[in-house]
Amino acid sequence: MKDRIINSAVSLRDETVRLRRDFHKYPEGGFFEFRTASVIIKYLQELGYAVRYGKDVVKEDAILGIPAEDILAAEKMRAISEGADPELCDMLDRGKTAVVATIQGKREGDRKVVAFRFDIDSNEITESVRESHLPMKYGFRSVHDGFAHACGHDGHTAIGLTLARILKEFENEFSGTVKLIFQPAEEGVRGAEAMVAAGVVDDVDYFFSGHLGLAANKTGMLYASTGGFLCASKFDAAFIGKSAHAGNAPQEGNNALLAAAQASLALHAISRHGDGASRVNVGVLNAGTGRNIIPDNAIIKFETRGETEKINDFMIERAKQIVFSAGDMYNVKSTMDCVGRARSFEAYDSDFASEIYDIANDLGLFNDVSKYSDFNASEDCTSFMSRVCELGGKSTYLLIGSDLADKHHTPDFDFDEDSLTSAAAVYAILAIKYAN
Amino acid sequence: MKDRIINSAVSLRDETVRLRRDFHKYPEGGFFEFRTASVIIKYLQELGYAVRYGKDVVKEDAILGIPAEDILAAEKMRAISEGADPELCDMLDRGKTAVVATIQGKREGDRKVVAFRFDIDSNEITESVRESHLPMKYGFRSVHDGFAHACGHDGHTAIGLTLARILKEFENEFSGTVKLIFQPAEEGVRGAEAMVAAGVVDDVDYFFSGHLGLAANKTGMLYASTGGFLCASKFDAAFIGKSAHAGNAPQEGNNALLAAAQASLALHAISRHGDGASRVNVGVLNAGTGRNIIPDNAIIKFETRGETEKINDFMIERAKQIVFSAGDMYNVKSTMDCVGRARSFEAYDSDFASEIYDIANDLGLFNDVSKYSDFNASEDCTSFMSRVCELGGKSTYLLIGSDLADKHHTPDFDFDEDSLTSAAAVYAILAIKYAN
Amino acid sequence: MKDRIINSAVSLRDETVRLRRDFHKYPEGGFFEFRTASVIIKYLQELGYAVRYGKDVVKEDAILGIPAEDILAAEKMRAISEGADPELCDMLDRGKTAVVATIQGKREGDRKVVAFRFDIDSNEITESVRESHLPMKYGFRSVHDGFAHACGHDGHTAIGLTLARILKEFENEFSGTVKLIFQPAEEGVRGAEAMVAAGVVDDVDYFFSGHLGLAANKTGMLYASTGGFLCASKFDAAFIGKSAHAGNAPQEGNNALLAAAQASLALHAISRHGDGASRVNVGVLNAGTGRNIIPDNAIIKFETRGETEKINDFMIERAKQIVFSAGDMYNVKSTMDCVGRARSFEAYDSDFASEIYDIANDLGLFNDVSKYSDFNASEDCTSFMSRVCELGGKSTYLLIGSDLADKHHTPDFDFDEDSLTSAAAVYAILAIKYAN
Amino acid sequence: MKDRIINSAVSLRDETVRLRRDFHKYPEGGFFEFRTASVIIKYLQELGYAVRYGKDVVKEDAILGIPAEDILAAEKMRAISEGADPELCDMLDRGKTAVVATIQGKREGDRKVVAFRFDIDSNEITESVRESHLPMKYGFRSVHDGFAHACGHDGHTAIGLTLARILKEFENEFSGTVKLIFQPAEEGVRGAEAMVAAGVVDDVDYFFSGHLGLAANKTGMLYASTGGFLCASKFDAAFIGKSAHAGNAPQEGNNALLAAAQASLALHAISRHGDGASRVNVGVLNAGTGRNIIPDNAIIKFETRGETEKINDFMIERAKQIVFSAGDMYNVKSTMDCVGRARSFEAYDSDFASEIYDIANDLGLFNDVSKYSDFNASEDCTSFMSRVCELGGKSTYLLIGSDLADKHHTPDFDFDEDSLTSAAAVYAILAIKYAN
Repeated sequence: MKDRIINSAVSLRDETVRLRRDFHKYPEGGFFEFRTASVIIKYLQELGYAVRYGKDVVKEDAILGIPAEDILAAEKMRAISEGADPELCDMLDRGKTAVVATIQGKREGDRKVVAFRFDIDSNEITESVRESHLPMKYGFRSVHDGFAHACGHDGHTAIGLTLARILKEFENEFSGTVKLIFQPAEEGVRGAEAMVAAGVVDDVDYFFSGHLGLAANKTGMLYASTGGFLCASKFDAAFIGKSAHAGNAPQEGNNALLAAAQASLALHAISRHGDGASRVNVGVLNAGTGRNIIPDNAIIKFETRGETEKINDFMIERAKQIVFSAGDMYNVKSTMDCVGRARSFEAYDSDFASEIYDIANDLGLFNDVSKYSDFNASEDCTSFMSRVCELGGKSTYLLIGSDLADKHHTPDFDFDEDSLTSAAAVYAILAIKYAN
Repeated sequence: MKDRIINSAVSLRDETVRLRRDFHKYPEGGFFEFRTASVIIKYLQELGYAVRYGKDVVKEDAILGIPAEDILAAEKMRAISEGADPELCDMLDRGKTAVVATIQGKREGDRKVVAFRFDIDSNEITESVRESHLPMKYGFRSVHDGFAHACGHDGHTAIGLTLARILKEFENEFSGTVKLIFQPAEEGVRGAEAMVAAGVVDDVDYFFSGHLGLAANKTGMLYASTGGFLCASKFDAAFIGKSAHAGNAPQEGNNALLAAAQASLALHAISRHGDGASRVNVGVLNAGTGRNIIPDNAIIKFETRGETEKINDFMIERAKQIVFSAGDMYNVKSTMDCVGRARSFEAYDSDFASEIYDIANDLGLFNDVSKYSDFNASEDCTSFMSRVCELGGKSTYLLIGSDLADKHHTPDFDFDEDSLTSAAAVYAILAIKYAN
Repeated sequence: MKDRIINSAVSLRDETVRLRRDFHKYPEGGFFEFRTASVIIKYLQELGYAVRYGKDVVKEDAILGIPAEDILAAEKMRAISEGADPELCDMLDRGKTAVVATIQGKREGDRKVVAFRFDIDSNEITESVRESHLPMKYGFRSVHDGFAHACGHDGHTAIGLTLARILKEFENEFSGTVKLIFQPAEEGVRGAEAMVAAGVVDDVDYFFSGHLGLAANKTGMLYASTGGFLCASKFDAAFIGKSAHAGNAPQEGNNALLAAAQASLALHAISRHGDGASRVNVGVLNAGTGRNIIPDNAIIKFETRGETEKINDFMIERAKQIVFSAGDMYNVKSTMDCVGRARSFEAYDSDFASEIYDIANDLGLFNDVSKYSDFNASEDCTSFMSRVCELGGKSTYLLIGSDLADKHHTPDFDFDEDSLTSAAAVYAILAIKYAN
Repeated sequence: MKDRIINSAVSLRDETVRLRRDFHKYPEGGFFEFRTASVIIKYLQELGYAVRYGKDVVKEDAILGIPAEDILAAEKMRAISEGADPELCDMLDRGKTAVVATIQGKREGDRKVVAFRFDIDSNEITESVRESHLPMKYGFRSVHDGFAHACGHDGHTAIGLTLARILKEFENEFSGTVKLIFQPAEEGVRGAEAMVAAGVVDDVDYFFSGHLGLAANKTGMLYASTGGFLCASKFDAAFIGKSAHAGNAPQEGNNALLAAAQASLALHAISRHGDGASRVNVGVLNAGTGRNIIPDNAIIKFETRGETEKINDFMIERAKQIVFSAGDMYNVKSTMDCVGRARSFEAYDSDFASEIYDIANDLGLFNDVSKYSDFNASEDCTSFMSRVCELGGKSTYLLIGSDLADKHHTPDFDFDEDSLTSAAAVYAILAIKYAN
């Protein structure tokens, strides 16, 4: 059966590439994936999947980092003008561009639930215009300036739809349920938590996700598991003061710029932690309107990280004290919103990783299979993984090898489309194995 | 002769109003006055004035707060599309939208030089769209969103051109020279210094300037002199650091955001001065690009003020130490550019003020004449006045009464156009008196 | 009668000088005046005055800047060893070294109350040992290292007791009451408020105080009134955090040093006030115990000043916000205690000043009498003066001319003892005039 | 021979204990070890050792953290009054209380050099007065309030002298040289660098040092080697500004308190390092003299640490920038002196550790021998060890088990004197083995 699955994936190559290039050409940032989600929904409905989306798969009050309403409205209009279904868009609006599709195997047997998760959002950078850049050369470069698929999520999404098509073909050969999870807003680690909170993975026995490239930077490589995810939190803080003429009556102002400057300095001075690594960064500070006006507004965008949840919690606790007391210090109102969160993943399962390693090694699809890689960054997939393990399931995060044109998150990033077929094949093999 | 001059001014009322409304409709911010200066130059050349402009009346290396090249280029294109002469625009480019015109009286006698200075730039705000706002009602509201004449400089310019026309009519009745100075970029106190540095007032015996409204907030009022100008300096400081990934290698970054935050806090903590009032304000701080990147760039816009030059110099000296050492503290390169400067005026001449007071009182044009008002703000006209007095001349700054629709620098600001005629008349009377 | 009073003062010169030199030799800092107050009490009781002291003339919960108990105990022991009455000392303890004595005139007539206030504390500096320094030469140099009468309060006290003796002599010649107020702890502006709060001047119709020297820096000068007292407040703030080993577990510490550093910087950055001069200074910061321990303790000593009460109140309000929010920022408990307060004096009475000027001019005691001097510093006598005026009385603060050996508050300060007699005489004349 | 050596050590027990208790009773802080060093010198000279000390074994310009001259002078006087030789004291003065003694074995054979290092300074805390505290009970509690041997260096010194005595006894049985190094000022990690700089270990083939207690907190335990020493640097920074009256002329002051506060905050905000753990702590800040004086002086005492030399070097580099630019920011002169330094030890030799482990295991002296312990703190012994290894020698740092009454560096710390004998025995066995 392995070989039949692989053959199926190979036969779908053109369709996979078509899908990837379509997503690549119309990249959409986190929670703006109106067109992307529309395409996914229609595609899966046509294949006969049970498809849920919007508020059915997203807990509204758990959404992190939702963009401003006017920006969302403009993006929705843009997506509709690019073919997205207006009714669907309304249901996907305000942070709910998430899709979950399930297929029930028709074979008799165990009713295990196997889930695969794909992230669908683009980066917010402008794609390269160099002639040697393949998307440029072949005419599928991003048509949205300021947005580009520079992390391979276009590929992930195409893999997901290809997997759906393969599983449909093999539906008589597995007894369990396969659940395909398309998650918005992985960049900024915003999209996963609210899907987890909606219970999307509460019934899952086996959970898989993965990434193209990263440490697996050659086509043919595969890492069967990943660990070392850094715990991270993203925050926006705002300071609202009172303006005054800086010459005539400076004492009447409540200086939001100074409160934000103060908070920034104090955030960077949060004590190191004796139990392990921590990080903090105020990446953006914008304050004030005119040179001769006491500034009445300021915002900072910052993040904390920790080697463990406990360390990151320490950072967050201290950050709160700082933001609010910096406001108080200048008689300024301050707010602090969590706009993103990635957990560490402390339930790594070495045995399950070995199992996947053995399976991958047997396929003949990959010539360089390793058991484990450190991720050394943040991924909100850890939210799904932690939940699955907490409820007794198993999970792993694979790295799928692909030749890379440049580093992730840079304008010239591109990957080898051959890797999409291998990825779809190994996922399908895992799906059918564990759904039996 | 007084009455003949007044009659001349009255007869020019429609032309004065036409000019004012034209300038009002096409407001141009500091150093963007390509169209305004073009109109002034042509108008005065047609009247037969000797007209100098651009680098002949502006010392290039003394220009303060010149805008970025791309913005200047766009504004020049815009002005040309609105009728400005392209060749003139090239000569006015890069901070040289200044015009100086002279007329030599034809009477025998003393060759005194009498100067009048008019500021021609608009504010950078968007004008009111309320129906009751007269420019709206009569169709001369600003056609440039983001720019509006909300300080009466449109009126000042119209007064200047009307004065030119009256003086031409009376050229046989004075023996000296009258010099009309049209200064760009008074807002931000940027335009005067470079004209003074070019020697524009070095030959002046009597210097007059003034303002519509302010304390003279009723038509019929006149203040013969003004003092209490606050010394002010405007600075932009930039911090150039080095970016780094905030998670992987924060130690590789040189944090420009923290340098700017630090500088802002320290600037506000400059010691008070025992000899009199001082001020400092960081009105704008913008830093950083992304939440997870050590910020490699920051800018602050700030100002200092002092009751005397000495106090302001103390503030500037301390500000420099702070900006550069804040950069050093974070291993960040810092720059600090003066983008505006208003002097205090410490050569107030009470006798000359009394003289002007007596003249104004005798005219019958004003029903409420006072000798003196505190200005309580900054005006770079003080640069001209200080230079004239330094070289032995006399100067005064008048406030011309005008009913006001709202406060200066607000969207609904408007003044009573009748005051333009009174202003032109009193200026012409002073010109002819002192040019004899 | 004037001449008889002057003769009486002159005849008491030796006694006055003896008293002054005794106080000079045993200087006592603020609230340590156990011996000084003992001497005053006994002296006045022997003269037949009604003498109140300790808690009868000091409201306990209004005392500002009371020293630590162990230091007070040591000073009391020291005073007893120098002859102070132990029982009296117990009653004067803990900030109550204040004495108020009254004499009721025996003449029929108006029962006006006339008060004179004398400050009795020394400075906390070490007196000069130069041979040319008169107290050294004549053997009455301070026997207390670290304490010296370098501001003339020894003279003030001697004037007060001499005045008491003269008034006793003339008690049949006035009908009202004269109240002599001996105030502790003027240095640091700590002693007056609690005496005012105890109602000491609530019945006073005419209030006089004054100072030797200052602007009146020649014997023979006299200023009849003084204004321009700066409003000032003195504070101690403490920060109590939690220590931790800086290497092993820095995150367990709550850093009091950083809270105090933060507060100090923010205090100096309190906005300037558009209505007039303000000041702030953190004069002392002490924090921490060991280099490798997260500091769990810090104290700062600071002061605010304002040209008016309103401006100083603004400073205080902002200071509180800063001290408490700086504590919060570092998870540290903070306290802020007022340890001194001088009011501005906004009820200056020009008519009364003229009256005193005329009287002084008539005496023949002073050859250079002026009506008014700016004080340009802080004096808590303003607390008495403000209270008297608030209740409808009149007050003035005189400067009594005296040749000075060096500036006030320096080790070589000394004054001309002849001025003591003139001061006692003019006070007695004013007392008897206004107590009739 | 092992047994003979052990027997020798056991027979010397009373002498060892006598020595330890003598040192314990007269504890001397870093660079104050005048009496301790005098005793060591005399003792070793009497045994016939070649003894060098003072400038012969200390490079003067490499001494770190030398105390102020007046304090050194007082301590020298104190030591002389307690029996130290005045002439010796002069030679040991100013940071040179170091002693190095050598014995040349009389056997034919290899001339290897084997060194043992003992630290001799006390802590600066006050010893317990509890009756159950053995030094109290047996009458050898510290006679110096503020100083106590609370880290076992009294024991180390006694071990060193006992070792000297044993080696003398066995001098015919080894061919090499044994060098005994007595190092001052280990607390604060100040004393080692200048001895290394003087070349004290440049000829050493085998280097041993060790510590009583720590992880080896039971008598009978032994760790054959130690690693994980934290790299640390200790600094004093001073800020010299200019005072001014805070009310009259604050602008004339250069505020040292604010410079120090600023530096403290910025030091704590030095970026975390992506390659490993770092630390920074400002443990002490003292600034200013009077509440109403702009502070003209401030000092901070701080330390940096790093998991590697590279990380600590990064901390130091950044600290320098901060201290000097904080000074510049307030127009204040700043200085920064290194007063202590401990290296990390990156040349750990696992094979040599195994060799020592095997030797120790064979002796029968210890019932719980381990190969390795992390030290998890700083020790300037690493300076010697790094130098020895750099020149091709071998080194190890042992932990000698001892029952402890309380934690190191606390008033009730005490150890089991039996462990001294075991330590002397194992050292002697190692000395003789490697000196052959």
